Amino acid sequence: MNGGHEGDDDRVRQFTEFRQRMNERILAEPNQVVRRFFALDTQTYQPGALDVKTKELLGLVASLVLRCDDCISYHVAQCKEAGASRDELFETFSVGLVVGGSIVIPHLRRAVDFLDRLERGDAAPHSAHDHG
Amino acid sequence: MNGGHEGDDDRVRQFTEFRQRMNERILAEPNQVVRRFFALDTQTYQPGALDVKTKELLGLVASLVLRCDDCISYHVAQCKEAGASRDELFETFSVGLVVGGSIVIPHLRRAVDFLDRLERGDAAPHSAHDHG
Amino acid sequence: MNGGHEGDDDRVRQFTEFRQRMNERILAEPNQVVRRFFALDTQTYQPGALDVKTKELLGLVASLVLRCDDCISYHVAQCKEAGASRDELFETFSVGLVVGGSIVIPHLRRAVDFLDRLERGDAAPHSAHDHG
Amino acid sequence: MNGGHEGDDDRVRQFTEFRQRMNERILAEPNQVVRRFFALDTQTYQPGALDVKTKELLGLVASLVLRCDDCISYHVAQCKEAGASRDELFETFSVGLVVGGSIVIPHLRRAVDFLDRLERGDAAPHSAHDHG
Amino acid sequence: MNGGHEGDDDRVRQFTEFRQRMNERILAEPNQVVRRFFALDTQTYQPGALDVKTKELLGLVASLVLRCDDCISYHVAQCKEAGASRDELFETFSVGLVVGGSIVIPHLRRAVDFLDRLERGDAAPHSAHDHG
Amino acid sequence: MNGGHEGDDDRVRQFTEFRQRMNERILAEPNQVVRRFFALDTQTYQPGALDVKTKELLGLVASLVLRCDDCISYHVAQCKEAGASRDELFETFSVGLVVGGSIVIPHLRRAVDFLDRLERGDAAPHSAHDHG
Repeated sequence: MNGGHEGDDDRVRQFTEFRQRMNERILAEPNQVVRRFFALDTQTYQPGALDVKTKELLGLVASLVLRCDDCISYHVAQCKEAGASRDELFETFSVGLVVGGSIVIPHLRRAVDFLDRLERGDAAPHSAHDHG
Repeated sequence: MNGGHEGDDDRVRQFTEFRQRMNERILAEPNQVVRRFFALDTQTYQPGALDVKTKELLGLVASLVLRCDDCISYHVAQCKEAGASRDELFETFSVGLVVGGSIVIPHLRRAVDFLDRLERGDAAPHSAHDHG
Repeated sequence: MNGGHEGDDDRVRQFTEFRQRMNERILAEPNQVVRRFFALDTQTYQPGALDVKTKELLGLVASLVLRCDDCISYHVAQCKEAGASRDELFETFSVGLVVGGSIVIPHLRRAVDFLDRLERGDAAPHSAHDHG
Repeated sequence: MNGGHEGDDDRVRQFTEFRQRMNERILAEPNQVVRRFFALDTQTYQPGALDVKTKELLGLVASLVLRCDDCISYHVAQCKEAGASRDELFETFSVGLVVGGSIVIPHLRRAVDFLDRLERGDAAPHSAHDHG
Repeated sequence: MNGGHEGDDDRVRQFTEFRQRMNERILAEPNQVVRRFFALDTQTYQPGALDVKTKELLGLVASLVLRCDDCISYHVAQCKEAGASRDELFETFSVGLVVGGSIVIPHLRRAVDFLDRLERGDAAPHSAHDHG
Repeated sequence: MNGGHEGDDDRVRQFTEFRQRMNERILAEPNQVVRRFFALDTQTYQPGALDVKTKELLGLVASLVLRCDDCISYHVAQCKEAGASRDELFETFSVGLVVGGSIVIPHLRRAVDFLDRLERGDAAPHSAHDHG
């Protein structure tokens, strides 16, 4: 029962700090496969035949149907950074909802709550790709 | 590590409020696919060839094997409302556990904790179908 | 692209023989955990607080949302054996479809095709619980 | 071990016929939830804030990470119809592969084989949205 | 957005107590299938042709790709108990990451945080197999 | 209903040829993310703190719980190559079965059938790591 309740802007900040600290910790580890995977993850969302916004929308819908809250809020923030509108985000949500089913609904609620707080300026967008 | 700890009846109430508030927020959005999906979700559990209790047990076992805590506690509450006994709920849990495997166990613990609190009157049952 | 095409009644018979042969092979192996799991799987669908038909409908919806064709056709046959009507099966399909999303549709097509053949007498129902 | 082997253009045609026949069969059934779900599925991919090509790419990546071969080949064909280039499809594949992991690789092989046959004209594109 | 933040050693202790209490509660229930499943779960990790450490690493990678935080931290602790080194754990993480994809990353961060706290002595290892 | 029937040794050979041909086709494509992912996949199973057999057993159990037949048969062959005994493979199967549940059973039947054919010499082991 992990909701996105009133007053958890502190939790968002704590979570962002936790993610950065643990990413650094993981990348300092002498495991080359893990480090290369993180580099590949960053490379995946670089512009190419598809622009960054489209790629981030793809990352968002994949995260929705696989139902990972951290990945969803990460990609919502990246989509906003890349210029996606609220309507574009909701159409992406609708694809995730129809493909993935009602089991996606609790994650959709938290995604919309996160988006609302981003638009109010309560949640700081990420400044660089930092791995889901 | 999201457990159902002592003293989180407040979290249950916060969660219920969060769910209602976000459902209203989502349904106010001009995205017809999302709104129709929510309507269809409600229609799914109406009585038909199968009664409401059986349909809610089906929703519960589907939520268990897909491992969504919010959906599980929602359907546990709906099953109770529809008259399911503790033994019927545990037999439904057992199908979910055997089909879905030991990965279901942490969700089963939280489901039983939620059921215990419902039976003690600590957790308010939902008054209407409000989407997983 | 594994469909349920015209003319694959032979495939159904081959599949049934394959399942029986492999179940015997697996149970002859000196691995007690696997053998106990198979025994537990059989016990799960015995009548209790819930009757056999309800339990098989639970097994069916769990198989649908987890998208396992073999398990789905197995439980469709068991549900028919236990007296489930076509309308009850379709309501169970509808719960699986709404909870699991459009990704369930290809499995639904094969489930309905299998049900049609069962009702025409083309596909032999299983004579005993033989493990998904 | 269901591969996309040489000489299974017949299987593609059989599969397409099977899909159409079963969709008609399912929609003829008096289950309103299932019928409404199919209508909603069609509506999801209509142009809106996002164009059809982007929506079909979203459907494709969701199908990839959920690993449904029928859905993947369906959306590959729809993406081609909507004007997606081979490079755009491969970038969508790359997002699906990185988000979903190496478990996606067997499905990627079948997706590329299907795309190759589409580009050679061996596999007929679908003429209308017909549900995954 | 359930992270493993600074200061949640209390949450770890609460979670451990919750797990033990709920396991006892579940095993006290007159449902034989559930009780037998728990016994079988314990038996699965007993030494045999494979030693305990290898079996716990198998349980860990299965939990990683199925993305269950409680199961992951449980098996990390069991692996440590069975003598797995940090490098062996990271190689197991790397298999889980490559097979399961970037969707595993948030769980990896929490796994490494849990491992760090175990190594600092902040998190008590489990004294016996207590079911995921 | 994709079983591993009598007489499908031809299908195994066709499948192996298909896999090799499509891997070459995919690696010839100018998509660096996909190519790097394939290289990383190979690197993951190189000996390190854990030996090759243990890593392949990890890959096998991950494939079992994620229920990918191609990946399962691939890793069964790799495990045999690396010296895993039938008992070790069955203990790995038992972990996958208990963690993943009865939904794994159809895949277990096909895995044991593939192992039987490998041991009879009917199915050629793979000569190098070629990506699941």
